[in-house]
Amino acid sequence: MATQKAGQIRASVLHGAKDLRIEDRPLLPPGPNELQVAVRSTGLCGSDLHYYRHYRNGDIIVREPMSLGHESAGVVVGLGSEVKNFNVGDKVALEVGQPCEQCERCKEGRYNICKEMKFRSSAKAFPHAQGTLQDRINHPAAWCHKLPQDISLDVGALLEPLGVGIQATKRAQLPVGSTVLVFGAGAVGLLVAAMAKISGASTVVIADIDSGRVNFAVENHFAHRGFTVPLKRGNTIEENLEIAKETAAEIAKTPKASSGGVVGEVDAVFECTGVPSCVQASIYATRPGGKILLIGMGTPIQTLPISAAALREVDIMGVFRYANTYPTGIEVVSKKGADYPDFSKLVTHKFKGLESAEEAFEMAGKTKDDQGNLVIKVVIETGDGEKANL
Amino acid sequence: MATQKAGQIRASVLHGAKDLRIEDRPLLPPGPNELQVAVRSTGLCGSDLHYYRHYRNGDIIVREPMSLGHESAGVVVGLGSEVKNFNVGDKVALEVGQPCEQCERCKEGRYNICKEMKFRSSAKAFPHAQGTLQDRINHPAAWCHKLPQDISLDVGALLEPLGVGIQATKRAQLPVGSTVLVFGAGAVGLLVAAMAKISGASTVVIADIDSGRVNFAVENHFAHRGFTVPLKRGNTIEENLEIAKETAAEIAKTPKASSGGVVGEVDAVFECTGVPSCVQASIYATRPGGKILLIGMGTPIQTLPISAAALREVDIMGVFRYANTYPTGIEVVSKKGADYPDFSKLVTHKFKGLESAEEAFEMAGKTKDDQGNLVIKVVIETGDGEKANL
Amino acid sequence: MATQKAGQIRASVLHGAKDLRIEDRPLLPPGPNELQVAVRSTGLCGSDLHYYRHYRNGDIIVREPMSLGHESAGVVVGLGSEVKNFNVGDKVALEVGQPCEQCERCKEGRYNICKEMKFRSSAKAFPHAQGTLQDRINHPAAWCHKLPQDISLDVGALLEPLGVGIQATKRAQLPVGSTVLVFGAGAVGLLVAAMAKISGASTVVIADIDSGRVNFAVENHFAHRGFTVPLKRGNTIEENLEIAKETAAEIAKTPKASSGGVVGEVDAVFECTGVPSCVQASIYATRPGGKILLIGMGTPIQTLPISAAALREVDIMGVFRYANTYPTGIEVVSKKGADYPDFSKLVTHKFKGLESAEEAFEMAGKTKDDQGNLVIKVVIETGDGEKANL
Amino acid sequence: MATQKAGQIRASVLHGAKDLRIEDRPLLPPGPNELQVAVRSTGLCGSDLHYYRHYRNGDIIVREPMSLGHESAGVVVGLGSEVKNFNVGDKVALEVGQPCEQCERCKEGRYNICKEMKFRSSAKAFPHAQGTLQDRINHPAAWCHKLPQDISLDVGALLEPLGVGIQATKRAQLPVGSTVLVFGAGAVGLLVAAMAKISGASTVVIADIDSGRVNFAVENHFAHRGFTVPLKRGNTIEENLEIAKETAAEIAKTPKASSGGVVGEVDAVFECTGVPSCVQASIYATRPGGKILLIGMGTPIQTLPISAAALREVDIMGVFRYANTYPTGIEVVSKKGADYPDFSKLVTHKFKGLESAEEAFEMAGKTKDDQGNLVIKVVIETGDGEKANL
Repeated sequence: MATQKAGQIRASVLHGAKDLRIEDRPLLPPGPNELQVAVRSTGLCGSDLHYYRHYRNGDIIVREPMSLGHESAGVVVGLGSEVKNFNVGDKVALEVGQPCEQCERCKEGRYNICKEMKFRSSAKAFPHAQGTLQDRINHPAAWCHKLPQDISLDVGALLEPLGVGIQATKRAQLPVGSTVLVFGAGAVGLLVAAMAKISGASTVVIADIDSGRVNFAVENHFAHRGFTVPLKRGNTIEENLEIAKETAAEIAKTPKASSGGVVGEVDAVFECTGVPSCVQASIYATRPGGKILLIGMGTPIQTLPISAAALREVDIMGVFRYANTYPTGIEVVSKKGADYPDFSKLVTHKFKGLESAEEAFEMAGKTKDDQGNLVIKVVIETGDGEKANL
Repeated sequence: MATQKAGQIRASVLHGAKDLRIEDRPLLPPGPNELQVAVRSTGLCGSDLHYYRHYRNGDIIVREPMSLGHESAGVVVGLGSEVKNFNVGDKVALEVGQPCEQCERCKEGRYNICKEMKFRSSAKAFPHAQGTLQDRINHPAAWCHKLPQDISLDVGALLEPLGVGIQATKRAQLPVGSTVLVFGAGAVGLLVAAMAKISGASTVVIADIDSGRVNFAVENHFAHRGFTVPLKRGNTIEENLEIAKETAAEIAKTPKASSGGVVGEVDAVFECTGVPSCVQASIYATRPGGKILLIGMGTPIQTLPISAAALREVDIMGVFRYANTYPTGIEVVSKKGADYPDFSKLVTHKFKGLESAEEAFEMAGKTKDDQGNLVIKVVIETGDGEKANL
Repeated sequence: MATQKAGQIRASVLHGAKDLRIEDRPLLPPGPNELQVAVRSTGLCGSDLHYYRHYRNGDIIVREPMSLGHESAGVVVGLGSEVKNFNVGDKVALEVGQPCEQCERCKEGRYNICKEMKFRSSAKAFPHAQGTLQDRINHPAAWCHKLPQDISLDVGALLEPLGVGIQATKRAQLPVGSTVLVFGAGAVGLLVAAMAKISGASTVVIADIDSGRVNFAVENHFAHRGFTVPLKRGNTIEENLEIAKETAAEIAKTPKASSGGVVGEVDAVFECTGVPSCVQASIYATRPGGKILLIGMGTPIQTLPISAAALREVDIMGVFRYANTYPTGIEVVSKKGADYPDFSKLVTHKFKGLESAEEAFEMAGKTKDDQGNLVIKVVIETGDGEKANL
Repeated sequence: MATQKAGQIRASVLHGAKDLRIEDRPLLPPGPNELQVAVRSTGLCGSDLHYYRHYRNGDIIVREPMSLGHESAGVVVGLGSEVKNFNVGDKVALEVGQPCEQCERCKEGRYNICKEMKFRSSAKAFPHAQGTLQDRINHPAAWCHKLPQDISLDVGALLEPLGVGIQATKRAQLPVGSTVLVFGAGAVGLLVAAMAKISGASTVVIADIDSGRVNFAVENHFAHRGFTVPLKRGNTIEENLEIAKETAAEIAKTPKASSGGVVGEVDAVFECTGVPSCVQASIYATRPGGKILLIGMGTPIQTLPISAAALREVDIMGVFRYANTYPTGIEVVSKKGADYPDFSKLVTHKFKGLESAEEAFEMAGKTKDDQGNLVIKVVIETGDGEKANL
């Protein structure tokens, strides 16, 4: 028995490049195993921004009007008839990908690479799974994660990109005491760095071309050390590889977080830019037997010094979204400490209401705002007037 | 070419139960690949104490006079002719086990379980490898680990038992965010708990029958939570298993370190007591698919609810000493932080000179000193008058 | 849209110890995601036999009349409205456990240890999930596995116990070239041995107290070598451990399958008896750093030389049923070869029709039949007269 | 005490491109931990051929006259004073790389990627470690592996390239029942395929541009299935990637070795050519979550569809030589069976004596000999007239 009547909700819907419209949509009561959730906070992700700007994301073209948004948290406002363990008023983070649950990958627990995945605000599957920039959505209870009361919904929304950081560190299986390099100090790079640190890496160096981002990362305890990558570009692949080698050599001179000297070759690189020069430098920077985690979605075809990896058994591993990361993420953001990453600092810009979506996307497309402040994570806070314990 | 002349040193030598004597011994110059090290700090371990008290350790009987001590750090005073990367005056921690380096276990990197291991102050191999309670020893440079200048030699000596904690966490391969239970808040239990915490466990509960030890652990950031195990004993194995179940159920009610509720079943138990009731409770406390690490050397033959482990795929894994842990350990003890374990606090009692060994062993045999202070790690600080940069 | 009308089927139902009755039951058309399967072959398992004999299985008591049988294959006779990839007439093996698909264990792919598992012919969950000794059942298509046409349904039914063998070898992660010991040459032991061999173990020794079973295993290529365990029993635990050590020492003298000498200490033991003397011998037989897989369900509380395992980092790992093994199993039984295990040989006794269940269970309770032939796997072949491509 | 007097031996020494000379060299008695080995069989490897032809191997330039050869087996003719477990007359396979045994990689068992490795017939370290094309060599007993009497020394020499196959399968950690694709049917590709098969892969497809090699592989049981790669080349990277996709799609249609249909996407690709088109096809051929093992040493800088790997968590892992593979290799080549790879078939051409080296290298540079027979592995058989039990 559903506790809500069918009704109308409002949704922010993308109809074309930069064509966002507020529309009314019908919403049925939640199905037997679903929750009805009032979405309260949605962070904007790079893929959303691509859709907003181009009505496509790389090769993936939008084929029908689609709501954006997939980094979300909200409050339970309705319960399907079979749902246990949830109550109206619960805060929840939404895990917005719905895998098929039948293929070998799903059954073995790697549902993030399920070929039949339906992921909100991605146009890959058709009909598209609608994003969370709506007043309310119905979502399977199995993919909602209850949040402790003291976690803000903006931080709850961060659990989605944090999932990538957890996935990356789980895949890397780093032993405690490792030295780690993170390329890219955007939201994902920061979250990855934080997870590497929390997982026991003894020195985490974050590298970016923007010294402001590097400083932000270190000051807010997302990484131990920073490195500002100089902008240099060669004319040939050979010159570029030479530059990549130099970059790796410079990074190697960074002091460790312990008193034990300099970084030298690193145990693992988490590449969060997708830029070939960074992937190349990752290969040179990694020690024999180390690992490179490819996280940044960037240039799809790259020219790489592949033998320099293979002949030293440097493994190049992909990270695509996440599986089984939300319970861990909740543990992670529930903590505080003097040297602990302050996750709430990542939300640099907040916009109110679905109507602000366009403005929010414009901000998300910048690296700094008009006051010169870093733009890291832009969040749209919504609410349907429902009385909830917020 | 050795840089030291052969000479005489003094050693503390055990000739029988509680029969420690100071003796002169000749010491050759270091071999080509050896360092000569002035031992400055030696922690006393439970196995040393057994030898001191009984001239045996379980089944292992001492067959010739033997110096005790294997948790040690010192200063380099001589260099073998082939040695690189070390200088006279360097602080070093000693990894005192010398494996055969030829068997399959050694070659695959698990040298701690090499059958031909020669381990200082253990009477297992014959002739016995003499312990470190000597003015100086010659030791292979490959098994000496250079310490940063700001690490004290007492903390350097702690790297040996810390190795057990690192070995345990490496074997456990815990994903970040795990919930961990540690049985036993002696030196090893504390170090194991600290390593679990540093490795990313989000809640580490330490359990002991002594509430003072439990409090010490939590106050000094070795664990997040404590649990004082009530002393209860049944008359039959069935009664004891029932008590073990109750203990596990009580521990499950401990609040998590995050805001996410109570511990419930734990992901991994690190058993550091060797006491059957704790091993039994470990089985009941662990969640399906979790792990139990057996670290404490205790009752060799135990009656256990083995099906309760097997039918839930709870794996029971041994931890014996350590392999490849010193570099990690140096990283670990080089750090400081508001919530970080303060390793120097573990050294509760210091004695000066080889002559103090008897007194030191008597102290190491107590749980509290005459002032009612906890006895955790007793250290004997030595020195041969050598001018070194201490 | 379901393709079958609701109707009546016949089921073999257990009402008490040795009280099996044939009853009519209604059967609805398959649900949207279900198949209706005419069960054609069901192997009898030890747990079924316990229920048959005692109306309980260890601590688990039957609380309502229950059909037995969970090792089953059949033919699709009806399709739920949402089902894809199956056709009427397809041969299928049934994976009869239905996990909750929502808990952390399920989501990470270890659904075999899901606490909410509903497993056919097990009385653990209530209402009990009815076993397969019925004319037809409805079963989720996601848990049916299509069989190639050339696999017989009796061999299809073997995929269930074979799953245990696959689970055991997957958990063991044995490198190629390993030496393996299997205790117990019943159906599970034989399947485990076969899987170890197929997985690349270079010497698989199977041990049993019955030399006939040992010979069967070697002659039919389930194992390379056999060892008949002498029946000896001591009066004290110390005497029994001494006997276990001797047994291990004798097994160590078995010649390898290669020309490289004797077995010596083994890399992994697969314990399929649950008998304490075998578990004890497993510990002594395993090399430092090796593994023991506990597969046999036997004595729940055992007295074990636990230090002899822990101090050599011999890990004791449980194996409970299986997860994600059917696709592999189908590959495995699809092969033939001169040295390849002949899986069809395991089905030593076939009975026809639900009415034969009592007789079949009586046979399953024997080790040899009246002609002196080994009883390994007893199968009940059924059929509802449906025209299918058999 | 050494059992041999110092003396003169003959060596085949490379002084420049195609400038091989037979020279006398002094040979000291074996050191305390060395064996003196009369080399009897040396296989020629691609790197040897590069040195022979160009006096360099890629970037590595020969800096002093150097004997070639590193795939070798021989007979013990002298024993160092400390050597145990060997006797004069023993057959041994030589593991010719001598790692430093002190660095972290060595100590953790990954000595193949030790930076200080001295590997016979490689010019990377200086002075160069001399190859095995000599009458006798002294070699550390720890790196000699005793062979069973019934293994021929030519097969013993094959243990070196077989080590690469073992290393590849160990790194891949394939579960039993996997589907595997091997690119390249040269000696290494064949050995890799054989190891994948022996390790439990249920379908191993070997692909090569030469149908003769493909047939050889399947007929001699090195692989289950073959695929002849069509020679096609595009004008742009996009065209080439399209061709690689087509190749992958064609391979996917290969029937499985079981009766279960076609290969589809494969679980792991073992890339043994180093050719970009094959690496590209490897990425497209691998299923989500699968692995690519880079084994072939080819084009050092490659343009790859890296996102197609990363976004599906297809991991790209290097394989460089081997560590801890000889004991396994001896097990592997000790076996025979109707469906088992016949390793002796790989030695297609044998030459006698050091004087034949030039002729042998010329043959090794061909893909077929003048009679049209495949050239797979060319071996130089030597001997110093020593009386040994051959």
